[in-house]
Amino acid sequence: MTDAKTSPARAIDELDTPALVLDVARMERNVARLTQRLSALGVVRFRPHVKTAKSVEVARRLFPDGRGPITVSTLKEAEYFAAAGMTDITYAVGLAPAKIARLRSLVARGVDVSVIIDSEEQARAFAARPRGDGEMPAVLLEIDCDGHRGGLTPADGRLLSIAGILREGGIELRGVLTHAGESYRCRGGIGLPEAAEAERAAAVAAAELLRSHGHAAPVVSVGSTPTAHFARDLTGVTEVRAGVFVFFDLVMHGIGVCAIDDIALSVLATVIGHKPEKGWIMTDAGWTALSRDRGTASHPVDQGYGLVCDADGVPYPDLIVADVSQEHGIIAVRPGSGAVLPDMPVGAQVRILPNHACATGAQHELYHVVRTGSRDIVATWPRMRGW
Amino acid sequence: MTDAKTSPARAIDELDTPALVLDVARMERNVARLTQRLSALGVVRFRPHVKTAKSVEVARRLFPDGRGPITVSTLKEAEYFAAAGMTDITYAVGLAPAKIARLRSLVARGVDVSVIIDSEEQARAFAARPRGDGEMPAVLLEIDCDGHRGGLTPADGRLLSIAGILREGGIELRGVLTHAGESYRCRGGIGLPEAAEAERAAAVAAAELLRSHGHAAPVVSVGSTPTAHFARDLTGVTEVRAGVFVFFDLVMHGIGVCAIDDIALSVLATVIGHKPEKGWIMTDAGWTALSRDRGTASHPVDQGYGLVCDADGVPYPDLIVADVSQEHGIIAVRPGSGAVLPDMPVGAQVRILPNHACATGAQHELYHVVRTGSRDIVATWPRMRGW
Repeated sequence: MTDAKTSPARAIDELDTPALVLDVARMERNVARLTQRLSALGVVRFRPHVKTAKSVEVARRLFPDGRGPITVSTLKEAEYFAAAGMTDITYAVGLAPAKIARLRSLVARGVDVSVIIDSEEQARAFAARPRGDGEMPAVLLEIDCDGHRGGLTPADGRLLSIAGILREGGIELRGVLTHAGESYRCRGGIGLPEAAEAERAAAVAAAELLRSHGHAAPVVSVGSTPTAHFARDLTGVTEVRAGVFVFFDLVMHGIGVCAIDDIALSVLATVIGHKPEKGWIMTDAGWTALSRDRGTASHPVDQGYGLVCDADGVPYPDLIVADVSQEHGIIAVRPGSGAVLPDMPVGAQVRILPNHACATGAQHELYHVVRTGSRDIVATWPRMRGW
Repeated sequence: MTDAKTSPARAIDELDTPALVLDVARMERNVARLTQRLSALGVVRFRPHVKTAKSVEVARRLFPDGRGPITVSTLKEAEYFAAAGMTDITYAVGLAPAKIARLRSLVARGVDVSVIIDSEEQARAFAARPRGDGEMPAVLLEIDCDGHRGGLTPADGRLLSIAGILREGGIELRGVLTHAGESYRCRGGIGLPEAAEAERAAAVAAAELLRSHGHAAPVVSVGSTPTAHFARDLTGVTEVRAGVFVFFDLVMHGIGVCAIDDIALSVLATVIGHKPEKGWIMTDAGWTALSRDRGTASHPVDQGYGLVCDADGVPYPDLIVADVSQEHGIIAVRPGSGAVLPDMPVGAQVRILPNHACATGAQHELYHVVRTGSRDIVATWPRMRGW
């Protein structure tokens, strides 16, 4: 049984909804802004995290030559981007030993792979691997700069014992990596320069500890979108990572990192009904299209499940997706606002800016690419998913 | 570039994680329980909602003859299940007029399609379609039984004006449909028999209004997993719908509809690190694997992002996924519990029961099918997604 549609949509008006729309002009501006900023700070290497876009077409536009280096969050991402010629890859999730075999297979095909570990257990799993069936990935030690998630603090003696296990096992210790995940708790930009400095200082201190004990540790990798945009000094840092900057989102707006007009990703939806007595407009974009991410729930401005724009991408005042079910969205005026619910007939299209671009993007298979202010589809780019 | 793996996993121990595991024995028990219950209540037709599983293999096991009838939430589901021979389909999301063409294409291929509408605008969009290029879907009027989402209340005069527009346009008005979405606000089973009776009464009253004005309205469709399990009388109802019952989940447990041991879906994850000073065990199952659904956040027992079991599916006492990022999960003891964090080395596998089976399932492409208490994979079933 084939689909009823016979030709691809030329404009978003013709798309079946819900659908993911990418404003590539905004994306290009976001990429240029961060690249120039890091260049001015003297950063040797920019290693964007491609987990946000999961698209070769997007990733190619992050670099002058389109080839990396990149950060990934799954082995499938590593394999997908390597197949597209991006052969300098850091897998920035703590390593499960069972994943070493797939990583070695990448290394054997010429991909320069770094992984992160933060325990002697993981180091021993590496060191115990038999040689002879392909080289091993290089290792970065994961540093905890703010108590957010994994990693060892910069003065933890286990850094040296892990380094020793790796050396004995003939595994390359390439350096250190940290991520200022707690910077996401900042609001309106307050505290971000300090978070960036704490991130830098932790990574540099850990690298110096390793070096003072005879480990080269040439790589000092830091990064998050908030800290990358607010760092004032990156002395000692050799590379910066960032992911969501490419699209931005309402969480980043609330943290103080971007303007609403920088948000490049939106979900196109169609009005399917009204409940005027409740102030509701119903659409066909539920959580399968928007994700369940409520990242702005703890912000001073709660954006619900997304901020509603017209089909050209211009926001309505204080109009949000107040609730979602699987394939339904409920649009309403933000509580406390004096804004008036706009008149939208059944069949009208809206575009919804996401709380979290990584999560909303992950719900879709395709980007429908437009340029700011136009509904013409200039390209259609696939996304990958899975592990 | 091909994958490093050469043969499919024979047991979940061999799976790359995260991965979706389906206990088919529990699923079969869940299906048998509801089917028998509805049969005892004299329900003429059971029309399960296949949006939860999005799998032909699962859907075939919902019916004695494996062919339906079914409820769907997207046109792509309708097309996918129709291609597998399930040709009696209700599309239970309010209709956007632009979707009529794809639905007609299904009707033209012999699929019996019903859609739901709740406005004169939608009825006019139907009635205005030119005849001759395929018959139209049949229409059910969406009834609001509890103020949850869309639909018209049973005494709303627009039911008759919509019915009149459809009759003039030569569109088949097949009856009414309602969904007791507010039943999800019940806890521990309290209020569910009343919610089921309100659902029944609203649908029957609306059908009687239509019939008293000369519209046949043969179909009276009600349903939600909670009300389907607690209804005591279904007089006047001709069909019942339910979706999540097939797998159940922690939200359904909190509402009082199932036991923990009824939950058939889990996410297999691997331990990747520890933060003993914080009481954390880190895994490789983040929100891409579990979803961002926090459906138990408002329950007396908050399950975080999921309840943690061992690799055989046996729950640990009060052990939950306390937080997630994209590819990281943080396991911790539930706040206020006296339970002890179990000892789990790096590389150990756990299985995580989901808050919301529909949302967690949607994050995956495959079911790895096991039977209760065994790690052997007896089948691998694909899932569909998209619109």
